Amino acid sequence: MRLVSYRRDGVVRHGRIEDSGGAQRVAELGDGDLGTIAGTILDGVAEPRGEHPLDGVELLTPIARPGKLLAAAANYQEHVTETGGEPLDRSRLSPRLFLKPSTSIAGPGEPVPMPSVSDQVDWEAELTVVIGRRCRDLAVGEALDVVAGYCTSNDVSARSMDYGYECDTEGAVWFFDWLAGKWLDGFAPIGPWLVTADEVPDPQDLAVDLEVNGKSRQHGSTKDMIFTVAELIAHASRLMTLEPGDMIMTGTPSGVGAATGEFLGQGDVMSVTVGPLGTLVNPVA
Amino acid sequence: MRLVSYRRDGVVRHGRIEDSGGAQRVAELGDGDLGTIAGTILDGVAEPRGEHPLDGVELLTPIARPGKLLAAAANYQEHVTETGGEPLDRSRLSPRLFLKPSTSIAGPGEPVPMPSVSDQVDWEAELTVVIGRRCRDLAVGEALDVVAGYCTSNDVSARSMDYGYECDTEGAVWFFDWLAGKWLDGFAPIGPWLVTADEVPDPQDLAVDLEVNGKSRQHGSTKDMIFTVAELIAHASRLMTLEPGDMIMTGTPSGVGAATGEFLGQGDVMSVTVGPLGTLVNPVA
Repeated sequence: MRLVSYRRDGVVRHGRIEDSGGAQRVAELGDGDLGTIAGTILDGVAEPRGEHPLDGVELLTPIARPGKLLAAAANYQEHVTETGGEPLDRSRLSPRLFLKPSTSIAGPGEPVPMPSVSDQVDWEAELTVVIGRRCRDLAVGEALDVVAGYCTSNDVSARSMDYGYECDTEGAVWFFDWLAGKWLDGFAPIGPWLVTADEVPDPQDLAVDLEVNGKSRQHGSTKDMIFTVAELIAHASRLMTLEPGDMIMTGTPSGVGAATGEFLGQGDVMSVTVGPLGTLVNPVA
Repeated sequence: MRLVSYRRDGVVRHGRIEDSGGAQRVAELGDGDLGTIAGTILDGVAEPRGEHPLDGVELLTPIARPGKLLAAAANYQEHVTETGGEPLDRSRLSPRLFLKPSTSIAGPGEPVPMPSVSDQVDWEAELTVVIGRRCRDLAVGEALDVVAGYCTSNDVSARSMDYGYECDTEGAVWFFDWLAGKWLDGFAPIGPWLVTADEVPDPQDLAVDLEVNGKSRQHGSTKDMIFTVAELIAHASRLMTLEPGDMIMTGTPSGVGAATGEFLGQGDVMSVTVGPLGTLVNPVA
């Protein structure tokens, strides 16, 4: 199933996309976005209460206000290398996670505003996983059992921060700027829909592509993750209780702008596609 | 006003504490916790719909699921020094913020569980500020205008992480472990109530005290913050939209366990008091 959140007649609702040969339609399942049913998707969804043409509704990000949005840093060796990092020995490494605020989440088509505090805004195509069951201390072998579904996403990142006064950027300070560069409004586009886990038999075999203004910039595969989706979930669940609707962005392959010093500006259009999960388009405004 | 979230008859509600000479009472203002009214506290609260003895209800953390919980690192020089840091030149520094997940939030009296991934669990008494208006790009001079109120809080922190296998801890890896040590379940006790901003004329003149098992461990003052409450809010609002109910923990003074290598264990009881904001007691379980 492809599940969507959308606005119709000014009200936020969620539904299921129906392919009936002709134009796509959305079968309406209930009020509120998909966050309201994140904990029951694994058990199935409600009976539809009506249908509408998909192009007559405004698609929204699947879950606008998750309990938490985690993201993995440095999870593809080629991306680590292109940004100046050393070869990583995963036998001596744990997954590196950070949090993004819900105010960073953007929907399909939603403009990503150029921030006032950075002119080095970069793209990061990523697979996002949506948690469907409350859980803690999962073993890697059981971690995929809690996945409600997957989404295409973009971990937009400001590579340097300029607060308008001179700052030291050595040591830990650099890291806090790196973190803040992940938080800006609109810097976490997710969508256009959620594909339920039963339709993604192997999350480690998905192409991850990103174009800027129609030109290919990232072309990777989730095969090349350092830590698998299951390992990221299991690790996160050892740190904290995961709740339905929580999301984990799983890291980006090589091809980011920072590798060549090319960054985004107003008018650029990012287009991300992860395997069969749909294409997520966001202009920079 | 002292505003509280509490459970009565199995239902979460919010109200106002009434001092009527004798035993304290709570005037019930509505359903849900204080997060439901965070955006209107600055305009006043509803008419009470009844009163109950305070000791007949279960106090909860004021806002269990904020849009975001930010926290300031390294915001008191004596704390930076006691943990091995250099003197900071604030003229060349920006506030250092990080995020804690809502699953880390704990209420008054709620046990903080010892995690499976660390045996170096430490306390950090802090003033927490609660945002009352949606805002962006605030000037320092207007930042306090968006404050709905203040709470006593404790930024409980695991000082090292042990995932059960040997890990490199150099460079950036160290920082990701530092971050994860802030996220564990129960590691953000906040409460016992929210004191509205009109009753805190100067947030930079509040004593910050913490006892462990009745013995004083921290005794500081918000006078000694490197960045003031207003500066932290203004800085955060340049990074992202702040929303009603968002909270910012403002950093801890000296006296943490890491300075002497003494950490918490099961059965220890932490007690934090920030000025007139009330005392927050949490056992370690």
